[in-house]
Amino acid sequence: MKPARECRQLAILGVGLMGASIAAAQKRSFPDTVIVGSSISTIDGRVALEKGYIDRFTQNNKEAVLGADRVIVASPPSSIASILKEIAEMVPGIPVTDISSVKTPVYMDFRKNLQSCFKSYTSSHPMAGREESGAQGARANLFDGRSTFLVPFASPKTPPEGDWENFWLGLGCKGTFTVDPMEHDQILSLISHLPHVVSYAILELLNRTEERNHLTHFNWEEQKGGALTDMTRISHSHSGLWGEILAANQEFLLNDLSRLILILESWKKQIGNGSMEEISQKIESVQNHHQSLKKLAKKEKKESDAH
Amino acid sequence: MKPARECRQLAILGVGLMGASIAAAQKRSFPDTVIVGSSISTIDGRVALEKGYIDRFTQNNKEAVLGADRVIVASPPSSIASILKEIAEMVPGIPVTDISSVKTPVYMDFRKNLQSCFKSYTSSHPMAGREESGAQGARANLFDGRSTFLVPFASPKTPPEGDWENFWLGLGCKGTFTVDPMEHDQILSLISHLPHVVSYAILELLNRTEERNHLTHFNWEEQKGGALTDMTRISHSHSGLWGEILAANQEFLLNDLSRLILILESWKKQIGNGSMEEISQKIESVQNHHQSLKKLAKKEKKESDAH
Repeated sequence: MKPARECRQLAILGVGLMGASIAAAQKRSFPDTVIVGSSISTIDGRVALEKGYIDRFTQNNKEAVLGADRVIVASPPSSIASILKEIAEMVPGIPVTDISSVKTPVYMDFRKNLQSCFKSYTSSHPMAGREESGAQGARANLFDGRSTFLVPFASPKTPPEGDWENFWLGLGCKGTFTVDPMEHDQILSLISHLPHVVSYAILELLNRTEERNHLTHFNWEEQKGGALTDMTRISHSHSGLWGEILAANQEFLLNDLSRLILILESWKKQIGNGSMEEISQKIESVQNHHQSLKKLAKKEKKESDAH
Repeated sequence: MKPARECRQLAILGVGLMGASIAAAQKRSFPDTVIVGSSISTIDGRVALEKGYIDRFTQNNKEAVLGADRVIVASPPSSIASILKEIAEMVPGIPVTDISSVKTPVYMDFRKNLQSCFKSYTSSHPMAGREESGAQGARANLFDGRSTFLVPFASPKTPPEGDWENFWLGLGCKGTFTVDPMEHDQILSLISHLPHVVSYAILELLNRTEERNHLTHFNWEEQKGGALTDMTRISHSHSGLWGEILAANQEFLLNDLSRLILILESWKKQIGNGSMEEISQKIESVQNHHQSLKKLAKKEKKESDAH
């Protein structure tokens, strides 16, 4: 792995959980990089400074990008377009990316208002997060072994520019996938946004059961094993950010939610029939289907690598 | 923690994942206990012997309980009543338990056919498991920090007998809850059986998406972050066993599945309205509700401890 090209000074606009983790991971791999962070929150700024994730902090985005040779916008999705606009004239030719969890709205804004300002633009999305929020929750190892989506905006279907692949590998990621904005949002609905809704729904079901108090011994927080711990972990993620994400990816998410509800109905029907053999067969067929798709993907990868 | 009363020789009928893990955990805490295992599967028996979890193996349950002063039936739920019947005459006054994931059917069988054979009987259910199966997947630390349900059968609502609380604490459990069979199954539906169905349903949704091949870059196994890893982990659990469990707890599970589907429909409606503020509020209200119930439970526990 070669280090990302020219990263003497990195600007991170937004040093909450994700921005501060990027700073921490960059410092871990390349201690010499000077990192300047900006944020509306002076608390996040102070924490990021105190922990040594960043070298300088300012509340002013323009000030933060001064002298930077690489810029990451790590603020909430709805603020990205306006921040890009704010800094556009100050970063000619310098690689800029954002880490928005939903790409289509950012892409639309970009095509409408920003395309003339950026020669090339590649949006990023590392598949990592924590149920904590703010710089306080940041971790240098947050990206270790995770994948990152690269989404070229300036001209779709062209290779990503700005050497962002090496940048993310440098933070510990295991690889990158290049997709277009709609593909990204469709994939993210399935691998992240839908799981969050399911986790909130399970927490709501547990709340309602507990409150009805019909189960005298029901104290699931103490009783749970690993299954429920895993299923409810992401239900504690930041409500403001996740309201934004779910609303922004509404279209794909509603489609996937409908499909999941239909599948759950089919499980309900099968369990209602009550035959343990048939339920086992249904479980096995889902597991086998998964295994055969996995094998197929492996074979296709092998073939494409051979060419 | 005092060691369980008189455990010179422990018989474990069924040395698959759970039985072999009990043996491994007992050996870890009390290396002097002689453990005799039985199973239909000679493979599990050989693995458990080779790993040192058990001292002797036999395919004969009666032979396994000879000389034991504590007996655990760790075979699939549907086999428990017949195994209890098989060994009943050989274990007068000796603590016997099972670890069935569903209690009502075992309890019904017990009341009908076995009550006269056992002076007292307490069923157990440690909240632990793995997506692996067989003795090969066993772990000595499987029960560390987990809770165990104790379900007295002989006369409901009486304290559990046989010193099983100390036994489970000795394996690493953090505590026990005493419940009746129906309470157990109602609680388990929520904290374990429903999460499994949700996990199978999510895997099925991912399979279907992958197979339709509409998403050229969709390779969720490589792309997933922690959320999907957590949500799909239990979808790989043993299909035969889980078909049995879901069928046996049909009634409570169908009720909870219906309630979850209704809750998911309400999320669909809210996301369809598209206001990020309202979605954030819905997330926050579920999170706050959970926090307030948690506080209440803590307060009630404090008050009951004070009495």
